[in-house]
Amino acid sequence: MSGARNISVALRRARVPKPRCLFRPVAAVQTPSFAATRTFTVTASANATKEIQYTTNAYPNLKRDPKFAEISADDVKFFKELLGAQSAVIDGVTADNADDIEPFNSDWMRKYRGQTKLVLKPQTTEEVSKVLQYCNEKKLAVVPQGGNTGLVGGSVPVFDEIVINLSRMNQIHSFDEASGVLVVDSGVILEVADQYLAERNHLFPLDLGAKGSCHVGGNVATNAGGLRLLRYGSLHGTVLGVEAVLADGTVVDAMSTLRKNNTGYDLKQLFIGAEGTIGIITKVSIQCPSRPKAVNVAYFGVESYDQVRKAYQEAKGHLSEILSAFELMDGRTQKLVHESTGNNYPLETEYPFYCLVETSGSNAEHDMAKLETFLEHVMGEGIVADGVLAQDETQFHSIWRWREGITEALSHLGGTYKYDVSIPLPELYQLVEDCKERLTKLGFVGDDDSFPVRAVVGYGHMGDSNLHLNISVRQYNKEVEKAIEPWVYEWIQQRKGSISAEHGLGLAKKEFIGYSQNETMVKLMKQLKNLYDPNGIMNPYKYI
Amino acid sequence: MSGARNISVALRRARVPKPRCLFRPVAAVQTPSFAATRTFTVTASANATKEIQYTTNAYPNLKRDPKFAEISADDVKFFKELLGAQSAVIDGVTADNADDIEPFNSDWMRKYRGQTKLVLKPQTTEEVSKVLQYCNEKKLAVVPQGGNTGLVGGSVPVFDEIVINLSRMNQIHSFDEASGVLVVDSGVILEVADQYLAERNHLFPLDLGAKGSCHVGGNVATNAGGLRLLRYGSLHGTVLGVEAVLADGTVVDAMSTLRKNNTGYDLKQLFIGAEGTIGIITKVSIQCPSRPKAVNVAYFGVESYDQVRKAYQEAKGHLSEILSAFELMDGRTQKLVHESTGNNYPLETEYPFYCLVETSGSNAEHDMAKLETFLEHVMGEGIVADGVLAQDETQFHSIWRWREGITEALSHLGGTYKYDVSIPLPELYQLVEDCKERLTKLGFVGDDDSFPVRAVVGYGHMGDSNLHLNISVRQYNKEVEKAIEPWVYEWIQQRKGSISAEHGLGLAKKEFIGYSQNETMVKLMKQLKNLYDPNGIMNPYKYI
Repeated sequence: MSGARNISVALRRARVPKPRCLFRPVAAVQTPSFAATRTFTVTASANATKEIQYTTNAYPNLKRDPKFAEISADDVKFFKELLGAQSAVIDGVTADNADDIEPFNSDWMRKYRGQTKLVLKPQTTEEVSKVLQYCNEKKLAVVPQGGNTGLVGGSVPVFDEIVINLSRMNQIHSFDEASGVLVVDSGVILEVADQYLAERNHLFPLDLGAKGSCHVGGNVATNAGGLRLLRYGSLHGTVLGVEAVLADGTVVDAMSTLRKNNTGYDLKQLFIGAEGTIGIITKVSIQCPSRPKAVNVAYFGVESYDQVRKAYQEAKGHLSEILSAFELMDGRTQKLVHESTGNNYPLETEYPFYCLVETSGSNAEHDMAKLETFLEHVMGEGIVADGVLAQDETQFHSIWRWREGITEALSHLGGTYKYDVSIPLPELYQLVEDCKERLTKLGFVGDDDSFPVRAVVGYGHMGDSNLHLNISVRQYNKEVEKAIEPWVYEWIQQRKGSISAEHGLGLAKKEFIGYSQNETMVKLMKQLKNLYDPNGIMNPYKYI
Repeated sequence: MSGARNISVALRRARVPKPRCLFRPVAAVQTPSFAATRTFTVTASANATKEIQYTTNAYPNLKRDPKFAEISADDVKFFKELLGAQSAVIDGVTADNADDIEPFNSDWMRKYRGQTKLVLKPQTTEEVSKVLQYCNEKKLAVVPQGGNTGLVGGSVPVFDEIVINLSRMNQIHSFDEASGVLVVDSGVILEVADQYLAERNHLFPLDLGAKGSCHVGGNVATNAGGLRLLRYGSLHGTVLGVEAVLADGTVVDAMSTLRKNNTGYDLKQLFIGAEGTIGIITKVSIQCPSRPKAVNVAYFGVESYDQVRKAYQEAKGHLSEILSAFELMDGRTQKLVHESTGNNYPLETEYPFYCLVETSGSNAEHDMAKLETFLEHVMGEGIVADGVLAQDETQFHSIWRWREGITEALSHLGGTYKYDVSIPLPELYQLVEDCKERLTKLGFVGDDDSFPVRAVVGYGHMGDSNLHLNISVRQYNKEVEKAIEPWVYEWIQQRKGSISAEHGLGLAKKEFIGYSQNETMVKLMKQLKNLYDPNGIMNPYKYI
């Protein structure tokens, strides 16, 4: 991705009304390579040496459903014969392969840990179909797994569900330059797909922090939102086709590559965001836009959340069709990134809020003119207190690191209670304030190690009314958790928000769906689940 | 809509390399008012005096399903008591109201005519729910009806199905300027919604010829595509929430106004494009973009379809984020519009192909600069032979009339066999050539009245690979129809196109779904239909 971006180099400073508003270049800092900072691995965490507790310990009420069969040596034999290749089956049933299996049992946040003894890596849709048909007949529960970068425990087993890992289904099938339609296997890594498109002057219409590891199929299965939904829209609009395999092995070929196709119910939509509970996505076709010729990014310090909202309205008005991201970070998140990376702050003074504004367009000169008018306006009006504009590609990535590095900075500190919520803009940040006040009053928050909570921080996708509320704890703590939940969900419900904007339900949010969906909706969802997966073998214990 | 558009006035002619390529203003023509040309009414047609034949005559194999009850006087009494208002029930069962009912029985193309004796116009979701609950219990078949502007016979009865017309559910509920989210009843007319948004500097992200009559609910139920899908994307991406009533009266409240909400299966997607076969849409929330401050439109003459393709590629490259429409019209369609309206041609010479290119952006000067660079390039390279650029709002609408007036021009001439198909761009127009050749060889095509076929024409949304193949006939003719179908569907199937890009299935395409969907898909669709409408009362005889 980085190679294709031409960053506008010059910042012309005309007509900036007040000296304190002067934009200046970011300090030349030692920036880790972009790909490296965006790839999450389980071992990257500072607390990697600690053993991850089993999910069944964290959720003692969860019981293994006795309707599911236990994996036998005969089952393993069947799968080995079916999948052929040695690397396609990791067998912990008839052999001791615990170490090889472990990475498939636990998530990168080190929060969820299952107990599977079998990992299957099919390479074709037909293999996926045969695996599922067998599992359905034998009532063997399964968990589809992509890059395993999710945040709600959706992609690892709880008990002994078989992991069906899609990493060997990694072919890019076609790209049509005239229409911009890309066809890929579900196991293609997002960044690989985007690099492929970059070489063809196109862009994957989704970008997120985990792009170096996550799979396109997993993105679609979780309806990932990410950093540029504001500009390129939701996967429900950009995904043109899906091939998926149902629990009974039926291959659903909804692999249209057409932008318009009104011939019956749009079944592919059901798989977008279904988190592998009704089928396994095996192929995806997606509409990709032309790669922007010019990309700019600016970083502001802002004195209050009200000013942040004003800045966003001004960005919408001035930048309009070239606005590709408007991100919010509070002061504490930036302090955490600073402490984690050792990088100098982009601005000289500290502010309670920071914004990152990105433009993507086809004409560098026009984009810069629009951006300048915007900057002059927000600085002239005192909406923004100070800011910098990236002047080359290194600075571009360096600035983005202040936004994208937050998750990683938090992961170095211990545990994080993560809430990914949609709230109407006027009250978006109020949730962070209220949560901090609540936990402080309860005596949980403090700087020294005797306090369970280190920090309550907020950041997110302002342009999508999407806040990430993160509570950084020294270790996961049931008392703290009880103080947050269900309080946080009630808070969101009162504002008609969503308790899961883009992370999905998985195991973490399953029991809280009622705060965002009424009983009728949940009943209709269960009816659908039952229609497509009557034995309930697909990703059990999760979702609805 | 028109009031909010500021058209860039000046065309600067710098550096156009060849005199023959000179762009010049369109002739000042008497243009009918915009709204008038975009409102279809049944009586507008030249052959309005002829009686429309019953659908059951055109489709003699269709038999009324005896499982459906016949409407009784008691039923009428129930509905009158339920809906209260005199105007809410048009009763042809216990009274003679044939003339009042007729407009609800037949479509504006005068191609489909049902035989209902009862039209209901509920005003609230609760009323819709009670109507459907009653009909479901009594096994009374129903047809949901919006603006009745469809092209496939989907919104009128075949036999005596009760028409549930949504025109009295016409409230605009809310618009939030910060997020751009509009909430409306399903019976709000598209143009009314767009005018409301125009006053608030926003735009409805869908535009189509029938906007003066069609309903937002009907647009969503048919997944309408229209003129600017290229820019604003499909309704699957822009619709944020749907409220709908299932056959048994269950109200599905999927009325999110959030851009991101990953809490369970996205059930609202099922209603988008379901053509009223699993429920009646009663409310819609939709993400609306800021209204562009500058809109330009250019009209070209092009010597070949290959050059049209090149022009489109250049438009994508040069106009990128401001390209909002790229329409294709063949020479014959423009002749028909000329003959129908009496307007002077925009260009002096006739060409085999014409394109309409529209830009929408936030900065008139930048947009014009991009457009000029594009025009210089395509004219300098000889890709485009001649063209005009609208210089004021009157010219803007006058140029669009050459595209939007095609449907109306055809409707004045007699019958039209309409095919709305997706085909990969390289062969898009070949279908028109092949069809014309086939019908000519069979002796059907000619200028005098002894030939059944007057013209085979093609036009459509180049940017969406969406062709409208229209065969204008002096009257509907079974021999001609047999020569076209299933030949045309086979042709499309061979190219993996869609037999219905945006018009949907309705009655017209129902039996041909197999050309675009495989057996498994159709089986899964029927399973869904059965799940939500086990008695099959919703819009029977149509869709899948």
